[in-house]
Amino acid sequence: MDLLKERIRSEGRVLPGNIIKVDGFLNHRVDTKLMAAMAEEFEKHFDVSRATVVLTAEASGIALATMCAYRYGLPLIYAKKAKSDNIEGGIIKSDIYSYTYKKKVTLMVSAEWLKPTDKVLIIDDFLANGEALRGLCEIVNSAGAELIGMGVAVEKGFQPGGRKLRDAGIPLCSLAIIERADENGIVFRDGQ
Amino acid sequence: MDLLKERIRSEGRVLPGNIIKVDGFLNHRVDTKLMAAMAEEFEKHFDVSRATVVLTAEASGIALATMCAYRYGLPLIYAKKAKSDNIEGGIIKSDIYSYTYKKKVTLMVSAEWLKPTDKVLIIDDFLANGEALRGLCEIVNSAGAELIGMGVAVEKGFQPGGRKLRDAGIPLCSLAIIERADENGIVFRDGQ
Repeated sequence: MDLLKERIRSEGRVLPGNIIKVDGFLNHRVDTKLMAAMAEEFEKHFDVSRATVVLTAEASGIALATMCAYRYGLPLIYAKKAKSDNIEGGIIKSDIYSYTYKKKVTLMVSAEWLKPTDKVLIIDDFLANGEALRGLCEIVNSAGAELIGMGVAVEKGFQPGGRKLRDAGIPLCSLAIIERADENGIVFRDGQ
Repeated sequence: MDLLKERIRSEGRVLPGNIIKVDGFLNHRVDTKLMAAMAEEFEKHFDVSRATVVLTAEASGIALATMCAYRYGLPLIYAKKAKSDNIEGGIIKSDIYSYTYKKKVTLMVSAEWLKPTDKVLIIDDFLANGEALRGLCEIVNSAGAELIGMGVAVEKGFQPGGRKLRDAGIPLCSLAIIERADENGIVFRDGQ
């Protein structure tokens, strides 16, 4: 998606440890118009009319997933990351490793809201090692629901998450795949 | 806001400890159309044309705040709750007590994205003890920005947050104020 790549190129910064900082428009300060444009873009890749729900993980996936759910006329579910008072029993869980926080995290969705009849579109802002998305897939499977596809804003193509998910046969659409990010700048897959 | 009150009345449940469970449409599974209707409602209370940014706290405020920011043509900033790799120096912080997680939490906004020239509309899903909203106000003040107002979906009127914020002179708009919630049901302020 050219619009997104241009924003990454002009506003993104590469920090030590291959961290790509796009927190001016994607995951801290959020350009909601860009989120809406990305939601529109995913429609070219997935038959969203078949979906019954959009699923993401808190917190940074929520803004993009909200705009997707709104555009497609669907409810949004966000998986929670810690046991809180207002999730009761009947929880579908998946343990993942958070590279951001360097610890194990449990993703949780109430079984009350994700049903075997659901057709799920998973949306997230970032794909690197793919742990969050693997966890969301596991939750969809545990619920007995159907995964329609997985839409991601930015994929770090030099980390293994995207390859693992594609190898597993998951329909994955990343709107910008970064092949290399270092002091020389950011290069997208396919030489873009 | 009648639409929201009806949803709380018909789908909300009261759990022990005065917890009001509305996670079927507000803060786990999210009805994005209802979020859009709430964003429209806030426009009756605040001059959103003066605002330059919508501010909320992760995670449960993000969906509603995203719909508000999108409707008003503004960027969204969500305060983060834990030190993560991609927030660098220059952080505006506020320590709050999270009653949900029963521990101290630090709200953080990058000083890069919240400026003294900003006019801020704070949005959140829930107001009970008001700690998150107090922290967001503190961040707005620390940034030297102007607070235009504070919009909340559901206020627990029997907890002190709303009164404290109003006593402090903050323009606060809660779309549904719950006066009592127990085994006999949910009663809204003004006998609604």
